[in-house]
Amino acid sequence: MVSPSTIQPKPPEHAVLLVSGPDQKGIVATVSDFVYKHGANIVESEQHQDVDLNLFLMRLEWDLDGFDLSMAEFHRHFASIAERFQMKWRVALTSYRPRVAILLSRLDHCLADLLYRQKDGELHCEFPLVISNHPDAKRWADFYEVPFFVVEVEKQNKVEAEAKMLSLLEQHKVDLVVLARYMQILSAAFIHRFPHSMINIHHSFLPAFIGAKPYHRSYERGVKLVGATSHYVTEILDEGPIIEQDVIRVSHRDTLGTLIEKGRDLEKVVLSRAVRWHIENRVVVYGGKVAVFD
Amino acid sequence: MVSPSTIQPKPPEHAVLLVSGPDQKGIVATVSDFVYKHGANIVESEQHQDVDLNLFLMRLEWDLDGFDLSMAEFHRHFASIAERFQMKWRVALTSYRPRVAILLSRLDHCLADLLYRQKDGELHCEFPLVISNHPDAKRWADFYEVPFFVVEVEKQNKVEAEAKMLSLLEQHKVDLVVLARYMQILSAAFIHRFPHSMINIHHSFLPAFIGAKPYHRSYERGVKLVGATSHYVTEILDEGPIIEQDVIRVSHRDTLGTLIEKGRDLEKVVLSRAVRWHIENRVVVYGGKVAVFD
Amino acid sequence: MVSPSTIQPKPPEHAVLLVSGPDQKGIVATVSDFVYKHGANIVESEQHQDVDLNLFLMRLEWDLDGFDLSMAEFHRHFASIAERFQMKWRVALTSYRPRVAILLSRLDHCLADLLYRQKDGELHCEFPLVISNHPDAKRWADFYEVPFFVVEVEKQNKVEAEAKMLSLLEQHKVDLVVLARYMQILSAAFIHRFPHSMINIHHSFLPAFIGAKPYHRSYERGVKLVGATSHYVTEILDEGPIIEQDVIRVSHRDTLGTLIEKGRDLEKVVLSRAVRWHIENRVVVYGGKVAVFD
Amino acid sequence: MVSPSTIQPKPPEHAVLLVSGPDQKGIVATVSDFVYKHGANIVESEQHQDVDLNLFLMRLEWDLDGFDLSMAEFHRHFASIAERFQMKWRVALTSYRPRVAILLSRLDHCLADLLYRQKDGELHCEFPLVISNHPDAKRWADFYEVPFFVVEVEKQNKVEAEAKMLSLLEQHKVDLVVLARYMQILSAAFIHRFPHSMINIHHSFLPAFIGAKPYHRSYERGVKLVGATSHYVTEILDEGPIIEQDVIRVSHRDTLGTLIEKGRDLEKVVLSRAVRWHIENRVVVYGGKVAVFD
Repeated sequence: MVSPSTIQPKPPEHAVLLVSGPDQKGIVATVSDFVYKHGANIVESEQHQDVDLNLFLMRLEWDLDGFDLSMAEFHRHFASIAERFQMKWRVALTSYRPRVAILLSRLDHCLADLLYRQKDGELHCEFPLVISNHPDAKRWADFYEVPFFVVEVEKQNKVEAEAKMLSLLEQHKVDLVVLARYMQILSAAFIHRFPHSMINIHHSFLPAFIGAKPYHRSYERGVKLVGATSHYVTEILDEGPIIEQDVIRVSHRDTLGTLIEKGRDLEKVVLSRAVRWHIENRVVVYGGKVAVFD
Repeated sequence: MVSPSTIQPKPPEHAVLLVSGPDQKGIVATVSDFVYKHGANIVESEQHQDVDLNLFLMRLEWDLDGFDLSMAEFHRHFASIAERFQMKWRVALTSYRPRVAILLSRLDHCLADLLYRQKDGELHCEFPLVISNHPDAKRWADFYEVPFFVVEVEKQNKVEAEAKMLSLLEQHKVDLVVLARYMQILSAAFIHRFPHSMINIHHSFLPAFIGAKPYHRSYERGVKLVGATSHYVTEILDEGPIIEQDVIRVSHRDTLGTLIEKGRDLEKVVLSRAVRWHIENRVVVYGGKVAVFD
Repeated sequence: MVSPSTIQPKPPEHAVLLVSGPDQKGIVATVSDFVYKHGANIVESEQHQDVDLNLFLMRLEWDLDGFDLSMAEFHRHFASIAERFQMKWRVALTSYRPRVAILLSRLDHCLADLLYRQKDGELHCEFPLVISNHPDAKRWADFYEVPFFVVEVEKQNKVEAEAKMLSLLEQHKVDLVVLARYMQILSAAFIHRFPHSMINIHHSFLPAFIGAKPYHRSYERGVKLVGATSHYVTEILDEGPIIEQDVIRVSHRDTLGTLIEKGRDLEKVVLSRAVRWHIENRVVVYGGKVAVFD
Repeated sequence: MVSPSTIQPKPPEHAVLLVSGPDQKGIVATVSDFVYKHGANIVESEQHQDVDLNLFLMRLEWDLDGFDLSMAEFHRHFASIAERFQMKWRVALTSYRPRVAILLSRLDHCLADLLYRQKDGELHCEFPLVISNHPDAKRWADFYEVPFFVVEVEKQNKVEAEAKMLSLLEQHKVDLVVLARYMQILSAAFIHRFPHSMINIHHSFLPAFIGAKPYHRSYERGVKLVGATSHYVTEILDEGPIIEQDVIRVSHRDTLGTLIEKGRDLEKVVLSRAVRWHIENRVVVYGGKVAVFD
């Protein structure tokens, strides 16, 4: 997600506009007409109307070649349209690589997966830092040349630990925080600093098995599928808007061990899809859930 | 499930033996040796060892051609082996067609599906009767020539209604009760009459969305998959051993209506698989969950 | 698909516009502006840009309440926009129920499934007739009160049989032909009469197992998933644009029989989804493949 | 796969016996009785009868604690049983870590995935070497401290290159060769050296898109799912026994690029499952296909 101040001076290629607001006649026509008149060549566009909530959502991506507005001018001009339709909106350049922090505890499969995908070009972002409450993941950070910080968390130092992490995140100008199996509970104050910009992976098909040890509870319950859920973090545990979910079949032949191993493969893809959609500005939150314009 | 008294005199082809008990050395050898010595030609066999529970489960299916024991003799002989290994067991003939009652309320997609599969030869069972608290399903019962009974349920006549249903089920010598979207809550007393022989279809991925209106709650929560679960009915609502589950992908593009329609396709397959495995004696309940020897 | 002549006089509620053509600046703006100026309240809209083919596709659905053009006027006015952008287009009213003919041979699971879904309100269409080369399906046609015709096909009467079927389809003003496990090969001449308006279900994951007996060949090859594919029928066998596909897991434990039974569940959903998307005007064919605006 | 000579002197824990042969009465009883009499505590057992081929397959895993035969004695004693039933068989110790060579070209996602899973304990094997025709993968080999060899392949040096690779594989006493996106075609002579012990990952749902550029052809054909297949390598390209397959949904919204990225996630899991089942002695080849005793 790009706020105006973080737009970089480099020559951008595409712009992405995300808008949401009360559904009204003429929104598509007005917005399309505006970008068209300024020379935009639209390469992707999708709208969604939520009839129950009388809500309109739109994602527009256009080639900036031939577009006659600078981003500053776009902000000025578009503000009045947005006001007229009471829309929330943001615009981003695809040349901008969002700055993503990864937090984890001991299990490093999601970390290794995210770092690989970024190196491979699948995730168009920067990883300015990795934070863990354990030193184990350092080898991965070193391998990918990402700064690595250990912030130990004990019962008595929670406040200090969070303060230290916040300071690191600010210092590194982080746009998105990814909890890639970070097992410490974060305070409401911390979470509030990252509204719809902190993504967690929970190792169950939410809302089944909210809370601790979902794999163990899945195994004990005898479910025939295990799942994983990536969601925005909100104050209430595992209750934030769901971005992506997937499941895999298990049977009585699975031990707890093989069930966990199957689940890990899910966690990786379910988390990486959410991160990707977020950094490509494809996710819009509305009414406690999300639309993914993929 | 076949109790000795319901075994029919017709020439059987295969026998199925299901055993469960504490895991001990020599069980497979002893049981295999016993059936071999009496001329059994094994066509399917599977065992399962649950290490945590120290439990042994086994399903054995053999061709009766050349087998030198009658079922009565088998019962007599096998009883001592079972006693020695403290095993629970049952034996069934595949020529026996279990007698299955279908209960439903208004929605008839599962009913129509089960009746089709039986007619088509996929479900090797009899449907001696269909019971509903609404008259609507009669057209299906008539089409498939299955006796149909309306047992209306009102707040003030619940006891009488259940008594009437029980009487119908007994009269028709029912082995298995299938709740194919039957929306009335059954009493513990009623449920106790069908231990591990009453199967329900719940329209969510249990344990997510236990209770009423799971599709509505799935839609509101913004899940990315909807599910269905077939399970044995026990006293505690939606808490019985899970036999089968499946899910289908939904997105923000789905309305509540299309989400429900997608879910219905799941319900049909998830329920029919459970019924099939049950009547083919492929399901063993242990520790609150099931093994399916498919 | 609705040609102008088949639009019914009944009060319509929504209109659907499908357009495709070379991608150019201003298409979305121009089309949106046009419908907006005439009072359209857009309820669904989606565009697709195929960069490789330089192609633009769009589906627009709007509430006709407040729309100030009759369909005749719309045709007149929109024609010039379409010409300007060299677009192919069609418009349909959601109040119109497309007239769908079902053709089948012996296997009736897809027939029964389609008829059920239409009765249940899931498929918004009419079934004016069912044609089979066997009399067996009559019971289903009778149950759903759909006219049923047997057109026997022998080697020596293929031409006459097709002529008879064509005559029936014309007489019943059919918009779409569904081959619901119709096992006779149709002539190119026959197929040409239904361009992108004849849907077939093939019981494999195309292009694997093109041609006869795909289940048998899947079983022999030892695949770990079996599939089903619904596609528009073109002259070359099983080569038409694919509308939908799905698969289900099989293993060495499956016999050919259980593999076929699993496949049939797929066939039903894969065919019914294609029929639904087609009659809801959600399918656009381009470059030998389809976009589904679901 | 463990040949007697490679069984290590270290204290083993479990033994796995795989047998296959013509189906006959008494096989299960005889084999079970044999291992029981020698004190085996069976922890997993599964049989499969292929009725069409009159074939019997069995996998037996037992705890060696209390088993009174050494592996040498087991071989001697079991040989006569095997002869009596005309069975092919092999026995392995789970303490033995099969020696697996990974071959790859440029794409390293499968390599990185396999190395991670082994380090993490999911794959119980050794990777004595990695061979590539490009130097790029060295960073992974170094990271995991696996010896890395570049064997360049040009049209004119194919024979020498294969000879060099064979020599490396022999020198490192390799039990299994994994082609983890190795893009060179291997000669029949090379392949013959690894009967049912060379696994390839093909990036399509075989037999669809046999041969080169399956993702490109999938994209052009407009399939709605892309797949991946792991199989034993035999002389005929992409025709060997299939071990595992999986698919993922794509749509017109996917570019060739995102289709390939989705496919890569499949390749990793589909290949790693095959490798795991192979090294855990869970795969039996019969009649051109495989049974997986998972």
